[in-house]
Amino acid sequence: MTRYALLAGVAAATLCAAAAASTPALADEGMWTFDNLPIEKIKADYGVTLDSKWLDDVRLSSVRLAGCSASFVSKDGLILTNNHCVLGCSSALSSEKVDYVKGGFRANLREEELKCPGQTAEVLLSITDVTDQIRKAGEGKAGEDFVKARDAAASAAEKAVCGDEANVRCQTISFYRGGQYKVYKFQRYTDVRLVFAPEQAIAFFGGDPDNFNFPRYDLDAAFLRAYQDGKPVQTKNFLKWNANAPKEGEVTFVVGNPGSTERLLTVSQLETQRDLTIPIRQLQSSEMRGRLIEYSKSGAEAKRTAGDALFGLENGYKVFYGRQLTLNDRAFMDAKRGQEAELRAKVKADPALSAKIGDPWADIEKAQVAVADNFLAYRQLETEAGGGSRLYGWARTLVRSAQERAKPAAERSADYSDAALARIERGLAAETPVIAPIEQMRLEHWMLKTREYLTVDHPGVKAILGKESPEALSARLVSDSKLGDPAVRKALWDGGLEALQASDDPMIKFVLATEGQGRALKKTWDAEVTAPVESAAERIAQARFAVYGESVYPDATFSLRLSYGKVAGWTHRGTTVPSMTRIGGTYERATGQEPFALPQSWIDKQSALNPQTVFNFTTTNDIIGGNSGSPVINAKGQVIGTAFDGNIHSLGGAYGYDGSINRTVVVSTAAITESLTKVYGMNSLVKELTGK
Amino acid sequence: MTRYALLAGVAAATLCAAAAASTPALADEGMWTFDNLPIEKIKADYGVTLDSKWLDDVRLSSVRLAGCSASFVSKDGLILTNNHCVLGCSSALSSEKVDYVKGGFRANLREEELKCPGQTAEVLLSITDVTDQIRKAGEGKAGEDFVKARDAAASAAEKAVCGDEANVRCQTISFYRGGQYKVYKFQRYTDVRLVFAPEQAIAFFGGDPDNFNFPRYDLDAAFLRAYQDGKPVQTKNFLKWNANAPKEGEVTFVVGNPGSTERLLTVSQLETQRDLTIPIRQLQSSEMRGRLIEYSKSGAEAKRTAGDALFGLENGYKVFYGRQLTLNDRAFMDAKRGQEAELRAKVKADPALSAKIGDPWADIEKAQVAVADNFLAYRQLETEAGGGSRLYGWARTLVRSAQERAKPAAERSADYSDAALARIERGLAAETPVIAPIEQMRLEHWMLKTREYLTVDHPGVKAILGKESPEALSARLVSDSKLGDPAVRKALWDGGLEALQASDDPMIKFVLATEGQGRALKKTWDAEVTAPVESAAERIAQARFAVYGESVYPDATFSLRLSYGKVAGWTHRGTTVPSMTRIGGTYERATGQEPFALPQSWIDKQSALNPQTVFNFTTTNDIIGGNSGSPVINAKGQVIGTAFDGNIHSLGGAYGYDGSINRTVVVSTAAITESLTKVYGMNSLVKELTGK
Repeated sequence: MTRYALLAGVAAATLCAAAAASTPALADEGMWTFDNLPIEKIKADYGVTLDSKWLDDVRLSSVRLAGCSASFVSKDGLILTNNHCVLGCSSALSSEKVDYVKGGFRANLREEELKCPGQTAEVLLSITDVTDQIRKAGEGKAGEDFVKARDAAASAAEKAVCGDEANVRCQTISFYRGGQYKVYKFQRYTDVRLVFAPEQAIAFFGGDPDNFNFPRYDLDAAFLRAYQDGKPVQTKNFLKWNANAPKEGEVTFVVGNPGSTERLLTVSQLETQRDLTIPIRQLQSSEMRGRLIEYSKSGAEAKRTAGDALFGLENGYKVFYGRQLTLNDRAFMDAKRGQEAELRAKVKADPALSAKIGDPWADIEKAQVAVADNFLAYRQLETEAGGGSRLYGWARTLVRSAQERAKPAAERSADYSDAALARIERGLAAETPVIAPIEQMRLEHWMLKTREYLTVDHPGVKAILGKESPEALSARLVSDSKLGDPAVRKALWDGGLEALQASDDPMIKFVLATEGQGRALKKTWDAEVTAPVESAAERIAQARFAVYGESVYPDATFSLRLSYGKVAGWTHRGTTVPSMTRIGGTYERATGQEPFALPQSWIDKQSALNPQTVFNFTTTNDIIGGNSGSPVINAKGQVIGTAFDGNIHSLGGAYGYDGSINRTVVVSTAAITESLTKVYGMNSLVKELTGK
Repeated sequence: MTRYALLAGVAAATLCAAAAASTPALADEGMWTFDNLPIEKIKADYGVTLDSKWLDDVRLSSVRLAGCSASFVSKDGLILTNNHCVLGCSSALSSEKVDYVKGGFRANLREEELKCPGQTAEVLLSITDVTDQIRKAGEGKAGEDFVKARDAAASAAEKAVCGDEANVRCQTISFYRGGQYKVYKFQRYTDVRLVFAPEQAIAFFGGDPDNFNFPRYDLDAAFLRAYQDGKPVQTKNFLKWNANAPKEGEVTFVVGNPGSTERLLTVSQLETQRDLTIPIRQLQSSEMRGRLIEYSKSGAEAKRTAGDALFGLENGYKVFYGRQLTLNDRAFMDAKRGQEAELRAKVKADPALSAKIGDPWADIEKAQVAVADNFLAYRQLETEAGGGSRLYGWARTLVRSAQERAKPAAERSADYSDAALARIERGLAAETPVIAPIEQMRLEHWMLKTREYLTVDHPGVKAILGKESPEALSARLVSDSKLGDPAVRKALWDGGLEALQASDDPMIKFVLATEGQGRALKKTWDAEVTAPVESAAERIAQARFAVYGESVYPDATFSLRLSYGKVAGWTHRGTTVPSMTRIGGTYERATGQEPFALPQSWIDKQSALNPQTVFNFTTTNDIIGGNSGSPVINAKGQVIGTAFDGNIHSLGGAYGYDGSINRTVVVSTAAITESLTKVYGMNSLVKELTGK
């Protein structure tokens, strides 16, 4: 499962194959934007011509979810994605009485489809280049002024494209690490309902142990439906369902929103990730993992509620474990050093270019000192403040939004543009469950780690704890806060700063008293890290364009991309892994014990299922987290699967693509159709998909 | 708290200041052996002459405990150490009815002193150089043969020194990373009883947050007593008690057993620690920490039993966190690279030397490839197999001892020499409690991590799990095994391999079926890592002796050392930390909430205590984990405190000493005397110490 939220502070970058800095992208490499596709190369390599009809149809059939990808697969707004992309919804709709994560969800009638709290679906309508405006806004500015001026220019650009139009969203996205800025305009659906989700035991068969490994046997697929005005959206564009599995070597396209790659960070930035930021993340994450595992043993309800948190945590842990493996690979880092040295030498050999861009690598290395000095406090008191507690998150959102709303729009940061504030308000209004024990655990863990890493005598720690212990303070905040009630949040939103300052809600009081620490640290960070690094990265981007030309693709930025490749297994250290698994193999792998215990439905229907049906398959497509749920499309533009994972080698793809071992893992439409028919009896859904 | 067990596989090494490879030890630097003390330098720096009487008296008063240091402080075998060095004893003597960890332990009469299960006390009697014998044994051999031949030579050397003498122990210890081998002969006491331990709330006031930090306010002191034939040992040599705190700048000697430093590992070895071995250790440790924290919330008994495990885990975690900080310090690593390059250049410039030693740095770097290939499996299936479960440990000890006992002595590894087997038998016979839920947690965690890191399809994982889950298998093994009963263990010991093979104890069956995986991996590890690295390290040691002479001290190897220094605070990043805290400050730091809640006794007696009494103080002595409990001695040879910690900077001391910031943290005899008198009313103990 490759879903994860976008990383804070990760900007876009130009990309170039890790193994070959000066050559164009390798075969099958690249997450290409729709306005710069390697049409000719695809034609040459696979004999497929992607014409504008094919591309428009695919783009307008592609859907962006929060942190995931998806596609329309019927004229009635039916959406195919991964089950792990709808877990938040299944979990939110569950209660002590009914567990849709464990048991799955099946709406046989439209009226049974249930709205997913807070879920949106977005379709890319247009792309507008705004590079010049953004660049100009920052010229001659530095530090916080630089960031603010650019944020303001981005807000203005979004406003110019989206205006006051209803049901659309504009977002300024950076490409080529500041080489380009574009406004992406999306059609936006805010009423998204759950149609079908399988049992977690088959959707995530093999669980964390098999995650990012292959062979796999997972029905990690689910269906949603977009509604507008209470009715299913009528979608002109949708992907035709092909229930036949592809053949070995068949061309495959993956269209979706890869979240973030960092293929062109400098060596000093990669070393900072390797030595500081990833280790701290992983250590704290591991401890929280232990707490959730142990907590989940305390009862059935605890197991259910901890499940979603644990899934996200373990998935993210493995992602960064895989990334760290690559960063700790000496050959890989040596190759990166070689590429950097080569580009620096080429720049140095060109006096005009050299004079124009200066030495951005040295500027970035200098900023790494500021990272080392500030990271722990900035992380604990700002980016990870609250440790993922929803109550804390709402409180801080209310406080910061109110502070920003008190300013004129031009002075607000882009995070609080008018459009952003509207989204924030909707988010606060959504019915989102609060699991008190997990809330308390998250807050307590955050306070404990903040005290541990910053020490007892740090002013930020003193401000948070006073004379209370993390245990007692977190318990008091969670038990006494009323922010779990959307009506309370709405009243505080409407009342603004005055209402917040008058509030006796302990979480509001706590955040009012402590969030200033984080704000001050963010100011320092923006001035000493973000601004100099962004400026330097842009200059490196310019140097790359000058030296290597523009036939490259940008780093992933959770924006719509197309990747191409083929069905293929791989060989590593002498072991060959075939590209396909079949439904029959599932029963051989099952042990009856979690996470290798099949759901009863699959046990009951074993004899009905065709054991030869292709279940999961691997392809050479270049994807990364955020691509989860992406349709896998054949040459005819038909959907033949949904991408739900990468193999363990694909995680290093954050820093570079290796076509010999990086693989996308797909659940086939063949297996989805077979199980919808034989196991779940979802005849009307199958009819909607196949016409039969 | 700096206590930790010796690291597996860590050998000794010559040492040289991290910042100055070619100069002698810096001021106050060094953990000196008693047969090579810098007498002249100490005289020059501090005006103190350490004559042979002073040195013999100090050596024969010094006591080695399991993983800790200590000293005799009365003629009746009274032993001063840290409270954290007796926690294992306090915990083992506790039950659901009485908690000696939380409440402390006070024997007012000799008859009330309670025997600590498994505790031994050792006094260094003599040192015999056996370098030539060991070297010769390995000549012309490689791989496993090399290791075996040397192990056999070491066993023979020990036998030659200790013979069949009762109550002594001989141990071959490596110095200068194979530059020297010596047999240390110890007087050995196996009846060690608990006399006094304070409440954990004051012994470890500030808990993990304050651990390795300063200012500190900890009464981390305890008393044991050595017995022989049921009577207190009459000790000719013991340290005189000085109840007055030292003055700023006063000279201090620390005598004890620093466990392990790695100041002369090569850069490639340090990188392996940084990138592979420490990260994996810390990640798994963090998850276990989260489990123990969450488990400890499930009830009072769970809190008590998890406490000891959690303390050891958190202490070890911080040790490696501090070490990792140093390894991730680019300036530090660059200095190491510079030193290595300098020595290599000097060797290269000397053709005769170069021909003799070859290129051991390249040999070690090559072995790091074998480390990378084998580490995960070797760790999970051998060095960390069982995850710290006592039942597993006993079972494996029984199985492997029986396998080895079936061989002639000459063919056994040193771990199973006759002397070692006698110790193993005693260990198995000791009454050691088994806490079933924690046993199960450790086993389950180990199985989960082994499956995760090696993947489901690894043969070692398949052997361990079969068709069972880690959860079910660990529960079954713990609930059904009878190995918690010493009589059962004794019967299996006496019955040997035959009894083990006939046993239906599930843990014995499990270990018999699975331990071969680890044994095979150890064989590969010894051949591809241990042997070539040891051989190369010896050649580097020879190169160092040739280039820099012999006026250096060896890396720590949990053998008796003397370090010298003075009472001093430090300044770091503009902040000055004074060298002393006073009892009055304890009451200001207290919050009433753990771990800043004082015990009732200290609350009750606040007015009786002199607030000006020096509580803890810092010195420049060069120490490391294993030194915990070491006496801190003044120029007259009197004890003025017991070392219980280092500051956070001292942890990097594993790789190099920095006299400007590395500090030892000491609890003063002044505070011990004051609290024994005013808080605990231990008048007879005070009289034994002071004569008053």
